[in-house]
Amino acid sequence: MSYGDVQAAIARLAPEFGDRFSVSRALREQHGKDTTFHPTIAPDAVVFPETAEEVQRIVKTCAELRVPIIPFGTGTSCEGHVAALHGGICVDTSRLRKIRAIRPSDLDVTVEAGVTRKELNAHLHGTGLHFPIDPGADASIGGMVATRASGTNAVRYGTMREQVLSLEVVMPDGELIQTGGRARKSAAGYDLTHLFVGSEGTLGIVTAVTLKLHPLPEHIAAATCCFATLHDAVLAVMQTIQCGVPIGRVELLDELQIEAVNRYSKMNLAVAPTLVFEFHGSRGAVQDQIAAVKEIAGDNGATGFEWAERPEDRSRLWQARHDIWWANMGLRPGAQGLPTDVCVPISELARNIEAAKHDVLQAGLIAPICGHVGDGNFHLCFVVDVNDADEMRRVEEVNQRMIDRALACGGTCTGEHGIGYGKIGFLQQEAGAAFAVHRAVKRALDPQAIMNPGKVVGDLPPSKETT
Amino acid sequence: MSYGDVQAAIARLAPEFGDRFSVSRALREQHGKDTTFHPTIAPDAVVFPETAEEVQRIVKTCAELRVPIIPFGTGTSCEGHVAALHGGICVDTSRLRKIRAIRPSDLDVTVEAGVTRKELNAHLHGTGLHFPIDPGADASIGGMVATRASGTNAVRYGTMREQVLSLEVVMPDGELIQTGGRARKSAAGYDLTHLFVGSEGTLGIVTAVTLKLHPLPEHIAAATCCFATLHDAVLAVMQTIQCGVPIGRVELLDELQIEAVNRYSKMNLAVAPTLVFEFHGSRGAVQDQIAAVKEIAGDNGATGFEWAERPEDRSRLWQARHDIWWANMGLRPGAQGLPTDVCVPISELARNIEAAKHDVLQAGLIAPICGHVGDGNFHLCFVVDVNDADEMRRVEEVNQRMIDRALACGGTCTGEHGIGYGKIGFLQQEAGAAFAVHRAVKRALDPQAIMNPGKVVGDLPPSKETT
Repeated sequence: MSYGDVQAAIARLAPEFGDRFSVSRALREQHGKDTTFHPTIAPDAVVFPETAEEVQRIVKTCAELRVPIIPFGTGTSCEGHVAALHGGICVDTSRLRKIRAIRPSDLDVTVEAGVTRKELNAHLHGTGLHFPIDPGADASIGGMVATRASGTNAVRYGTMREQVLSLEVVMPDGELIQTGGRARKSAAGYDLTHLFVGSEGTLGIVTAVTLKLHPLPEHIAAATCCFATLHDAVLAVMQTIQCGVPIGRVELLDELQIEAVNRYSKMNLAVAPTLVFEFHGSRGAVQDQIAAVKEIAGDNGATGFEWAERPEDRSRLWQARHDIWWANMGLRPGAQGLPTDVCVPISELARNIEAAKHDVLQAGLIAPICGHVGDGNFHLCFVVDVNDADEMRRVEEVNQRMIDRALACGGTCTGEHGIGYGKIGFLQQEAGAAFAVHRAVKRALDPQAIMNPGKVVGDLPPSKETT
Repeated sequence: MSYGDVQAAIARLAPEFGDRFSVSRALREQHGKDTTFHPTIAPDAVVFPETAEEVQRIVKTCAELRVPIIPFGTGTSCEGHVAALHGGICVDTSRLRKIRAIRPSDLDVTVEAGVTRKELNAHLHGTGLHFPIDPGADASIGGMVATRASGTNAVRYGTMREQVLSLEVVMPDGELIQTGGRARKSAAGYDLTHLFVGSEGTLGIVTAVTLKLHPLPEHIAAATCCFATLHDAVLAVMQTIQCGVPIGRVELLDELQIEAVNRYSKMNLAVAPTLVFEFHGSRGAVQDQIAAVKEIAGDNGATGFEWAERPEDRSRLWQARHDIWWANMGLRPGAQGLPTDVCVPISELARNIEAAKHDVLQAGLIAPICGHVGDGNFHLCFVVDVNDADEMRRVEEVNQRMIDRALACGGTCTGEHGIGYGKIGFLQQEAGAAFAVHRAVKRALDPQAIMNPGKVVGDLPPSKETT
């Protein structure tokens, strides 16, 4: 795959965008690094468009010159999504920040890609509605679309896959398309919306997103409880899901994770495998959920039910949960984070988590465990010294075993972080013969391979059409 | 687009499949007609594979000879999906009927494409689980995947889009792929599962489907109530949705629809605009839903709340709802049905329904109205004489106006029936610049254009690669 002259693109775009175009080293490096251990691979320039039409102009220039484009949200992805593997122009979407329309009577909203999830919820204040998807970081909505993000509320509300009604996308040739309308369902042609959700900027640049909103729950209750073993905690979750209790959230934290949280967030949680529950609904529905969960958790030896009754106590609890990443980094100053992300069928969850924990201890590694366990999704956060080759090898081995186990029981190598360039081999392993279909889609929509090249499906071998 | 010699394919497949291969005229004609007014366009032969491997062999033969393939489920689609526009081999999936695995502890199931929704629910008897998606007909699961079907439960459970975890698909070159695993969420590459859900057999043949299952609701209550005007009934639905009441089902029937149902299903419903509600959940949740809906419906002048307390009364009520199509055909013996299918944002529902009804009356047509109104989806069922050119012209005009109105307010030309070849012009109108992306996807995955050709995106102009 040979690309065109990035300097020619810079020469054309720099005067056009003025102080919204930069080749400064610091800015480029900041745009070539995510929050994880993946190394910095900086783009050649960064541009800050303010409208979809400006994005179209950038893309048309790069398409004409065959120069790579790397879309950038808040840089909080986990698998090297923003690394400029082939150089090129980074399109920072943070100034695409209009709330185009809030429509409370349709329970939907249209926002530009750079609006963050917290900004969106701040705008919704007073409408009685909220947008529930909450990855740890205050990510941009466009970035959350790109990685098919989820978070703690997915067990109740689904992931970005379930929230996006339609997208405005600048295609790799600069054409602007709408992938759909605002109807709650549609059978009109191929599901382009879902094709772009999770496409990680490799098929086009999302410039605006129409999302479902949800009424704020009439009642919310949150509780933590402890278990003697990780196994007991996971069994309680499995039984809750299998009984169909429509819980709002259920998060697992192991002892080490609780220690990290207590230290970083100045909490005083009992150091034991812990579940954090949240219940949403009408008063009657919440009472029924609490009764069901208390019984199931009790059967599995839960102790120390602590209720967070006041909104501020709940906020503090969930903020601590969202700050886990930073809490974990505090366990080993100077180290970096390598998060794993398998997701398995719920009946396989206990076995998968326990085997992973066993492997971590055997390999002498540091890796607190947390998880959106209601979905079967859990993370080991390896806290690593990237310069210790032996340690990195052990981490890779444990991760590979974890993914082998997940795939063998029908799970996936990534529940919510995506592929980037860090997991291409795992996607190939998971998809098997379907990997060729992923590649055919990429080639069809981005025949010049200029959109975030090297990600998801890797670099494509040259085809007749593209050479 | 020129295809190969279908007789050569017949000569190869006939001996291979013996009495599971037929060129009988009656059988071919039965496979070239759906339930609606679209004319019969028969394939050249029909084959009944019993395994995915047999499907692969058929597809490989047709691919080698460049002969069209038309996948067939139960023939209950609505937009000419099964018409053999370019002749070819019809692949009847009804003998792909294994239940491969029921996994109650994961709330999922894997079935072959020919299993129907009622057969599936019969197999689930005793597990405490059900599969809720219910188009009127007892369609095959593969066909429901192909058209992205929904039905009365979609307001609570979503459509096939939300139920399919992954698919086994025979690609147009005969390769067998899995689009994903059984994890509840995944961020592993492009969303191939959703690309095939709703692809109407134009990208490959679905041979097996892994579906989510749902616990049978602890409590169910159903009720009908009447309104003075259609407007009042629709307002009650809009307010119910806008308040976030998690109802199980809500169906609208206008006076004419009630008359047809009373006559066909020997019911005795009051002849007035009617809503049929169903409430699912824990006892407390159902009580809260009923209280909320009673208040909202009452505010809009609802009268005559009738409760169907016993399961057999509920079954009778919903069977009558599902038989609406046949009830409507009974309104005008010898006529055929032309169902419309727009879906609009909920706030636009009353305006769209009333304008449609007005147009029908102005044009002197017969068209009962029913709708999965909680989704914003409603159907006019035109009962037409296809030989009356003037009547057909008036029907087309009313339908076009209805679609124009729906698209203008962010809706879609089809909520659940799909495009087939009956709605290609409407898809083009709805998709705009994105229509080229639909076509690029088709060309990438089916470069020879042998899979159900002429459907969804129409016939593609020849490209360099395909000529």
